[in-house]
Amino acid sequence: MMHNKALALTLSNAIEQQQFDKAIKQVQALRPIDIADVLALIEPAFAWQLLERLPNRSTIFSYLEADIQLALAEEFPQDSLARLVGEMPADERADLYKYLNQGQRDALLPVLAQAMREDIRRLSSYHEGTAGALMTTDYATLGAQMNVAEALASLRREAPDAETIYHAYVIDEQRKLLGVVSLRGLILAAPERLISDIMVSSVVSCNVNEDQEDVAKTVARYDLISLPIIDDSGALVGIVTHDDAMDVASDEATDDFHKSGGVSTMVGRLKDVSIGVLYRKRVFWLVFLVFGNLFSGLGISHFEDVIAANLVLVFFLPLLVDSGGNAGSQSATLMVRALATGDVVMRDWFSLLGREALVALLLGGTMAVAISIIGYIRGDEVVSLVLALSMMSVVMIGCVIGMSLPFVLNKIGFDPATASAPLITSVCDASGVLIYLFIASKFLTI
Amino acid sequence: MMHNKALALTLSNAIEQQQFDKAIKQVQALRPIDIADVLALIEPAFAWQLLERLPNRSTIFSYLEADIQLALAEEFPQDSLARLVGEMPADERADLYKYLNQGQRDALLPVLAQAMREDIRRLSSYHEGTAGALMTTDYATLGAQMNVAEALASLRREAPDAETIYHAYVIDEQRKLLGVVSLRGLILAAPERLISDIMVSSVVSCNVNEDQEDVAKTVARYDLISLPIIDDSGALVGIVTHDDAMDVASDEATDDFHKSGGVSTMVGRLKDVSIGVLYRKRVFWLVFLVFGNLFSGLGISHFEDVIAANLVLVFFLPLLVDSGGNAGSQSATLMVRALATGDVVMRDWFSLLGREALVALLLGGTMAVAISIIGYIRGDEVVSLVLALSMMSVVMIGCVIGMSLPFVLNKIGFDPATASAPLITSVCDASGVLIYLFIASKFLTI
Repeated sequence: MMHNKALALTLSNAIEQQQFDKAIKQVQALRPIDIADVLALIEPAFAWQLLERLPNRSTIFSYLEADIQLALAEEFPQDSLARLVGEMPADERADLYKYLNQGQRDALLPVLAQAMREDIRRLSSYHEGTAGALMTTDYATLGAQMNVAEALASLRREAPDAETIYHAYVIDEQRKLLGVVSLRGLILAAPERLISDIMVSSVVSCNVNEDQEDVAKTVARYDLISLPIIDDSGALVGIVTHDDAMDVASDEATDDFHKSGGVSTMVGRLKDVSIGVLYRKRVFWLVFLVFGNLFSGLGISHFEDVIAANLVLVFFLPLLVDSGGNAGSQSATLMVRALATGDVVMRDWFSLLGREALVALLLGGTMAVAISIIGYIRGDEVVSLVLALSMMSVVMIGCVIGMSLPFVLNKIGFDPATASAPLITSVCDASGVLIYLFIASKFLTI
Repeated sequence: MMHNKALALTLSNAIEQQQFDKAIKQVQALRPIDIADVLALIEPAFAWQLLERLPNRSTIFSYLEADIQLALAEEFPQDSLARLVGEMPADERADLYKYLNQGQRDALLPVLAQAMREDIRRLSSYHEGTAGALMTTDYATLGAQMNVAEALASLRREAPDAETIYHAYVIDEQRKLLGVVSLRGLILAAPERLISDIMVSSVVSCNVNEDQEDVAKTVARYDLISLPIIDDSGALVGIVTHDDAMDVASDEATDDFHKSGGVSTMVGRLKDVSIGVLYRKRVFWLVFLVFGNLFSGLGISHFEDVIAANLVLVFFLPLLVDSGGNAGSQSATLMVRALATGDVVMRDWFSLLGREALVALLLGGTMAVAISIIGYIRGDEVVSLVLALSMMSVVMIGCVIGMSLPFVLNKIGFDPATASAPLITSVCDASGVLIYLFIASKFLTI
């Protein structure tokens, strides 16, 4: 953004002239993420000189993209880096650690406190895309035997290190999750009441190995500020906060959206992605579909005589074939998104299939009328009939393929979003060509 | 869900036999949204008999779909309904009001308190899709001259009616927004400190007329629990909470996803939408594209002689034409989502266009190689050359159309997501047919 670029230039000049007070003044009214966006535009050496002097440096640093974090980390003297990493939220710290090479890790770990080292190792050991990789260990806990006054005092002590104290989790000696207390509940309760009396014991939680997409769905469904994450023994191991859940939901939607357009999973913002990555993420489906489309070609060559005798058929070929693909894309789009949001589950397939067939009948009928009129103008009654019948069949089959493919892919372990518009289009094209030319060969003279 | 259906049956039986204690016991450990899901499966007359007896009835009622809320509202005696509506969160109450017919409104309004009536009228006057229609008026405010102890006491009083007290907004006599204080900050601060000293005065806020999509983006960007909404004079008129922002982000993603598949904006869950609605939301694009595809047909008939002399061209027609559409769909998908998430803005168009051209060159080159080999096997060197040249041009043009159309649509005031895969496919098909047959007519004999 222009504004950010201008600010970045001003800051660079100020830092170059060692006018740090001036630079700090320029950014102090900004939010951490806005400062991070400006720092990303500045020379790493200048950026860290400013960052080091800002009070909320660890929050700002957490908002930077991984590659910029690394570039800055190389500029930081080891002790400053250790201090900064120590101040970072636990989940961001573990994410940074994953990006470091072995040399950087070896340099960083010894200067961190023992507890922090173990925390990093544990958090960075969870598989990408699970609740464990998403959660933070900076949460507030309470004992069931505390009273409200003691609990508030405890939260005051934990506040500086916890990501949120608005929900505090009640655990026993084995860290087993017993309940949850909201800060709202605490300040409304009488100081002498016991936590065990005011806590809510039916806590919504997720397992540490659960898919991050399901974690985000749970947070959204129950309108949570934070979701406790437990291990197989029921012990509390972390929390996922509402903002991280919202980011996951957005990333998953982007991923599904890209897949629906035939683009493979891609990390990072479109503006920042390299041409090489863009090429690689797109070429697979394009070339794959070239070979898929050969089936359409084979279908055509099988009916070459009918085409040669009735060239008018070629006129309608793209139209008919596309209509099937379009109808199929619509069905697939509806299903993929409904599966992703959880509005539809596997066992709904058959009941939805019946409904889809009805909708397809109506859609196919409407389009058959439209095309038969054009066919009559351009050809004759027989062509008109062939077109109407073909359109009906092509749309029906397109819809059935489009709605079934996401379920089939899901069943055999693929992401249903792989049922992209390009894939559906190619599959529907090949079947459309065959249906159209088959029907034509029955009605038209060779 | 099976589990819900079984529970609904048990509850219906219990309620029919007036065993309310048994029914309440069955649901009391469930979360409000889970109870709402079960109540939706029960006869309205039974559902309200149970609902009336549950302590968190207004929360449960808020989670029900509008049509079920209306069905239940008809069962409620007027005084129970008024009590329930009075307990509902302000934003949900205004939403319900919008769905009521004039008779129901006239019956409801007189039994509500004056302040509540005005609140309903004000909230329901904002246009659907704006910050005003999304916000709630149940927020907590503080005066700048209060000290921390007074502020905490004030929040304790406001807590039962406020959606969140985790952020309290500091306003002056004209309700102008001066700053924000977090509950976390309050319980950490010394009781005698002044709010004006501890408040953060650079508050992120949105205007009441802003698009709800931008509101959701702001909440996501700044990781907010609640976002204050101000009117044109800077006065605080409401807040949008993180959970409502997350719902909006998800709905907007669904909407874009549907549009990308050529399905118009659709409200409600796929399972619940009627066949008539499904038909209407899909038929427009399908029929529109039939007429769009006629251009492909016209292109074909213009080059009928070349086709008649070289039937092998028809073999490759679907393949070539689809490849352009597929490449274009990919570009459009990337752009539409990047515009939606804010990763890309209008002024990035030209710089992205240059990059896209490079990617298209690489993709087109790869595919030209693939198809020229097939062309050589199936035809001869000339066919192979025609195919390679056509593929290159078709993919390049597809990419440029695919990436530009969302920007063009955005510029002229349409949702960029209208650049759906079906639309791009049809546009690319028509241009692909023309390019292919034009190149063929230059190289091949008629």
